[in-house]
Amino acid sequence: MADLNQQMEIIKRGTVEIIPEAELVDKLKSSIKNARPLKIKLGLDPTAPDIHLGHTVVLQKLRQFQDLGHQVVLLLGDFTAQVGDPTGKSETRKQLTAEQVLENARTYERQIFKILDAEKTSVEFNSRWLSALNFAQVIELAAKYTLARMMERDDFDKRYKEGLPISIHELLYPLMQGYDSVALQCDIEIGGTDQKFNLLMGRTLQKEYGQAPQIAITMPILEGLDGVQKMSKSLGNYIGIDEPAREMYGKTMSLPDDMMVRYFELVTAVSLADLRAIETGLNNGTLHPRDVKMRLAREIVTQYHNSEEAQAAEDEFIRMFQQKDLPDEIPAFKPTPDMGDAVWLPRLMVAAGSAASTSAARRLIQQGAVKVDGVKMADFNAHLNLTDGMVIQVGKRKFFQISI
Amino acid sequence: MADLNQQMEIIKRGTVEIIPEAELVDKLKSSIKNARPLKIKLGLDPTAPDIHLGHTVVLQKLRQFQDLGHQVVLLLGDFTAQVGDPTGKSETRKQLTAEQVLENARTYERQIFKILDAEKTSVEFNSRWLSALNFAQVIELAAKYTLARMMERDDFDKRYKEGLPISIHELLYPLMQGYDSVALQCDIEIGGTDQKFNLLMGRTLQKEYGQAPQIAITMPILEGLDGVQKMSKSLGNYIGIDEPAREMYGKTMSLPDDMMVRYFELVTAVSLADLRAIETGLNNGTLHPRDVKMRLAREIVTQYHNSEEAQAAEDEFIRMFQQKDLPDEIPAFKPTPDMGDAVWLPRLMVAAGSAASTSAARRLIQQGAVKVDGVKMADFNAHLNLTDGMVIQVGKRKFFQISI
Repeated sequence: MADLNQQMEIIKRGTVEIIPEAELVDKLKSSIKNARPLKIKLGLDPTAPDIHLGHTVVLQKLRQFQDLGHQVVLLLGDFTAQVGDPTGKSETRKQLTAEQVLENARTYERQIFKILDAEKTSVEFNSRWLSALNFAQVIELAAKYTLARMMERDDFDKRYKEGLPISIHELLYPLMQGYDSVALQCDIEIGGTDQKFNLLMGRTLQKEYGQAPQIAITMPILEGLDGVQKMSKSLGNYIGIDEPAREMYGKTMSLPDDMMVRYFELVTAVSLADLRAIETGLNNGTLHPRDVKMRLAREIVTQYHNSEEAQAAEDEFIRMFQQKDLPDEIPAFKPTPDMGDAVWLPRLMVAAGSAASTSAARRLIQQGAVKVDGVKMADFNAHLNLTDGMVIQVGKRKFFQISI
Repeated sequence: MADLNQQMEIIKRGTVEIIPEAELVDKLKSSIKNARPLKIKLGLDPTAPDIHLGHTVVLQKLRQFQDLGHQVVLLLGDFTAQVGDPTGKSETRKQLTAEQVLENARTYERQIFKILDAEKTSVEFNSRWLSALNFAQVIELAAKYTLARMMERDDFDKRYKEGLPISIHELLYPLMQGYDSVALQCDIEIGGTDQKFNLLMGRTLQKEYGQAPQIAITMPILEGLDGVQKMSKSLGNYIGIDEPAREMYGKTMSLPDDMMVRYFELVTAVSLADLRAIETGLNNGTLHPRDVKMRLAREIVTQYHNSEEAQAAEDEFIRMFQQKDLPDEIPAFKPTPDMGDAVWLPRLMVAAGSAASTSAARRLIQQGAVKVDGVKMADFNAHLNLTDGMVIQVGKRKFFQISI
C-alpha cells in the first residue's frame, strides 16, 4: 500500500470537500497499519443508466481509491425505484420493475467497468435491507433525525418557503439513503457537491446506530462542452462514454481552452506529475493549447476505446482540419453581434444561407447531414460557441467557415 | 331506529363541531334506509387507563349513539405504545409491553362498560394492521399528506417556530392514527376539541384510500371541580369513576353552581327534556341550586354505582351538612382579599389557625386528617374556591367555617 502522504495527495486531487479530513487521515492510518482496505460507497440512480463524462468525475476518484488498494461499493437504490413516487407528481422518480432495475444495473456495469476495477467493486441493491424493515423499525430510523435539520436541505427549504407542497414520504428518502451506509458499514461515501446533504446524513445515522461515521467526499459538478453549464444529456453538451471514438475525439476538440486542465484533472487518469506539467506548460506558453487538447482527446478516447482507435480518430481529425482536406474555397461567415455567445445551430445555418428555414435546418440535422468541425450533429437543439475557423458542413458539398 | 331529526337532536347535544354536518345527515339517512348501524371510533391512550369524568364526555356521546342503534369501536393505540418514543425524550410516550397493553385494556373495559353497552362495542388494537405494514406501504401512507398541512397542528407549529426539535418519526404518528380509520372503515370519529387535527387526518386519509370519509365530531374539554381548569388527575380537580359513592357525591357538591347545567349536559344521561327543564328552573328561580346539585350528584353516583348507594351518599351528606351534624359552635373564618380566588389548602389552614405551618398542614393532609365539606382531601396541592358556609375539618375535633 502507498504511504499516508501519497494516498492523501492522490485522494485530494480535484475534490471540493473532505468532511472531515482529519478523520480520513485516521482511517487511512488504521487501514495501512492493519492492511484493511477502506470501503467506499457511491450511490447510483437506477432510473438513468446512461453515463457521460460528467458522471465519471466520481468514478475516476473511485478508481484512484482502488489503485490505492481500497474497495468500492456501487449502491443501486432499487428500493425507492420500485416504490416510485406514490403521488405520481415527480418525473424524476420513475417507477421501475425488478427486471428493469436489473437491466439498468447490467447497463451500468458494462459502462462503469471501463473505469473501475471489477475485482475491487461490489454492486449492492438497497431493497435487500430496506424492504425488510417493518413499521416499528422505520419509526426507529425516523426518530434519529429532526425536521429542522432535514429542512436544511436546499430543495426542501426552498419549496417550503415558496409554499410548494412537500409530501411526508419525501422526508423518508434521505433517511433511506443514509441508512444504506449503516447497512453497508461504509468508511467513505463519495458524490457530487449536490449530494453533500445526503452524504452527511449517512454520517449522522451511522453515529446514531453506533458505527464509526463515514467520511464524506464531494467532487465538482463537471461543466459540459460549452464550458459553462453542467454537463447533461438534456442540454446536449455532453460526451457519452458509449459514443464512437471519432465523435468523442471531435467533441473533446470543441471544448473551450480554459476547461482543458479541469478535464485532465477530473476525467482522465493522467498522473499528478503530468497534470502539473500540462498546467505549467500552458501557463508559460511552452505547450500549444491545440496540442494539449489533442492529448486530452486521445486520453479520453483511449480510456473508453483503446489507443489504436484514439490514434485513428486523431489522424482523421488532422486530415479533416489541419491538412485542410476541405474544398479549396470555403465561404466565410461573420456572425452578427446579436447572435450572442451560443448560437442555435439551425439559426446559424439559415443566417449563413445553407438552409432555407430553421425547420429545414432541423430536418437536415435529424437526417445526420450536418457536421461541425467534422463532428456529426444529431441534436437540433444544439447551441454552438462560435470560434474563428470553425467549419460547418451541410450535406456533401455545402461548407461555410466562421470568421470572427 | 329513531328518525333523522330525533337522531340529529340527540347527536348534537353538547357537541362543539360536526365536520361536516351535511355529510352526517346523509350517512344517517342511508343508515336508516338500509338499517345499517354506523361505526363510530374512539381512540384510547393505552398508557393511562384511569378514567375520570372528563373522559366520560365522549363516552356519553358514544352511549347516545349506541342507544340510537349504532356500533362503537374502541381503538387502543397499542402499536405506538409498544414502539414507545425511540428518542427517549417524551414522557407521554411510555413504552409498554404487550402484556401491559392487555392489562390496561382490561382496566379500560371494566370502567368503560359502566357507560357503554358492551353488546354494541368492539375493542380493536392497531398493532393488528400497523405492525403488518412494510416500508413500501409506510411510504405510500406518508405520500398522502404534506408537510405544510402537518405543520398546521398546533404543537408542531409552535415547536417549529420556537426552534424546539421535532423528530421525523413524530410526523408519522398522526398518519398512523388516521390510518386506523382506514383500516376500520369508520363512519364517524369522536374526540375532544384537542383531537380535531387527528380526526380530520382520518377523514383525509380515508378519501386518499378511496373510502367515504368519516365525520369528525368534537366534544368540549370538561372543566374540573374548580370550574376553571381542565379536569385532570394532576390538578386534583377530578372525580374518578372508580371512586367510592360518598367521595363522588361530596366532590360533586363542591362544584360551582354555574357549572351544573354543563355537567348535566355532558356527563349525565338525563334526557334532553329534563336538561331543558333544569336550565329553565334555574334561570327563573323555580329550582333551588342546591337541590339541582344534589340531583346531579345522585345522577353521577347512580351511573357509576347504583341508586341505593346514591341515596345512602345523599343521606350521609344531608346528615353531615344540612342537618348540621357538626359541633354546635364552629368558628368562622373570613378569607382576606389577598388570598385570591383559589386558596392553597395548607395556607388556608395556617391562616385559620388549624395548623402551625404549611408543612404541618401538608403532613395532616397526607395522613388523611383533613376534610372539606365532608370530603377527605388527599392532595396537599389542592386549591379551594372558598364558598360561604364551606366547612373545613382537621383531625377529629378541629373545625372552621368559611364566612364571606
